[in-house]
Amino acid sequence: MTDIESHPRLISLEGGEGAGKTTVLNALRETLLQAGHEVVSTREPGGTPLAERIRQLLLSPDGEKPSPETELLLMFAARAQHVRETIRPALARGAWVVCDRFTDSSYAYQGGGRGLDVAFIAELERRVVGLQPGLTLLLDLGVSQGRARASGRDAQPDRIERERDDFFERVREAYLARAAAEPKRFRVIDASREAATVVADVTGVLREWMAAA
Amino acid sequence: MTDIESHPRLISLEGGEGAGKTTVLNALRETLLQAGHEVVSTREPGGTPLAERIRQLLLSPDGEKPSPETELLLMFAARAQHVRETIRPALARGAWVVCDRFTDSSYAYQGGGRGLDVAFIAELERRVVGLQPGLTLLLDLGVSQGRARASGRDAQPDRIERERDDFFERVREAYLARAAAEPKRFRVIDASREAATVVADVTGVLREWMAAA
Repeated sequence: MTDIESHPRLISLEGGEGAGKTTVLNALRETLLQAGHEVVSTREPGGTPLAERIRQLLLSPDGEKPSPETELLLMFAARAQHVRETIRPALARGAWVVCDRFTDSSYAYQGGGRGLDVAFIAELERRVVGLQPGLTLLLDLGVSQGRARASGRDAQPDRIERERDDFFERVREAYLARAAAEPKRFRVIDASREAATVVADVTGVLREWMAAA
Repeated sequence: MTDIESHPRLISLEGGEGAGKTTVLNALRETLLQAGHEVVSTREPGGTPLAERIRQLLLSPDGEKPSPETELLLMFAARAQHVRETIRPALARGAWVVCDRFTDSSYAYQGGGRGLDVAFIAELERRVVGLQPGLTLLLDLGVSQGRARASGRDAQPDRIERERDDFFERVREAYLARAAAEPKRFRVIDASREAATVVADVTGVLREWMAAA
């Protein structure tokens, strides 16, 4: 992994459905702004006009279903573009970047969920991403609790959100295994608690991180 | 390359702009039909509804330009889908498949033209394609002659066709190097000749190939 640069001002947010990523993202953004930083908040798949068009191909529940390999390559095609056009320029000018999902999502969803070879995902990460968040917040939540929360939303589930529970169990396991393997980068946040408690927790983590960065 | 299956009924057509691929494709199709075979004629990037949508992202001259890495991964995302949904099912039921561009195009355009690492392209081929044409016809033509022919068309050039001559010189060199390295699979066809002569040449090659297959 020596070819992959870890950047302290790149923060990623990971987790399954209904874990409260949007609420947490807004709180992180607000905390960084209050500290006087420029903040770019972005998401994956997406983050550039072309990458957002790739997102539509990936997540639309209609039309031809991408094979697991096609899904993986579309994710990394969008990510390569996102890193080059949005993330690297923002970091270069001194901004903080908060990203709703990053490469760990591919390890969790395409690796854990779809069962694709993790060595291939690592090769793609090394070849076309080459950048890792300094800090990754994993909003961890049981699958059934996440689904119950997500079902209360207005939005229709996208193609991947329509997978079965066993898929999301594998996604969660893959996330937790990655967090255990990289304890310096990951903070596992218990997302089953009240939103205000979760927000207080993550903003506390972020303040410590900013102080050390 | 032992993980890559060579299939005698998969024939690919390669070459640059203005080399006459469409005319040759039609002649190959007609020759196979006359011999009583089912023929699937297809193209890359494309060949399935999803892959054709990826083609639009790749070739549209408008909007955000994909990075070389993004271009490569989109090409292989489309190809993985094409192989799984169109080519393998056709071969499995006994059809012949004639493909306007296949993996050699990525070696030539993204490898030769863009300068991406050929080892990475080979890894993608092994991981997500796993299939090679038994016969590849390379329609070889000088860059300036190809451009002169292509400029006589009505259609607007796509994003890749708008590259400079030195790009297409590198593409041509990469094609010829691949043909030299795999003489059993490749036939290099001199596409500078009259269309009728080229067609007679390729249909002769195909008849020999069918007789041996």
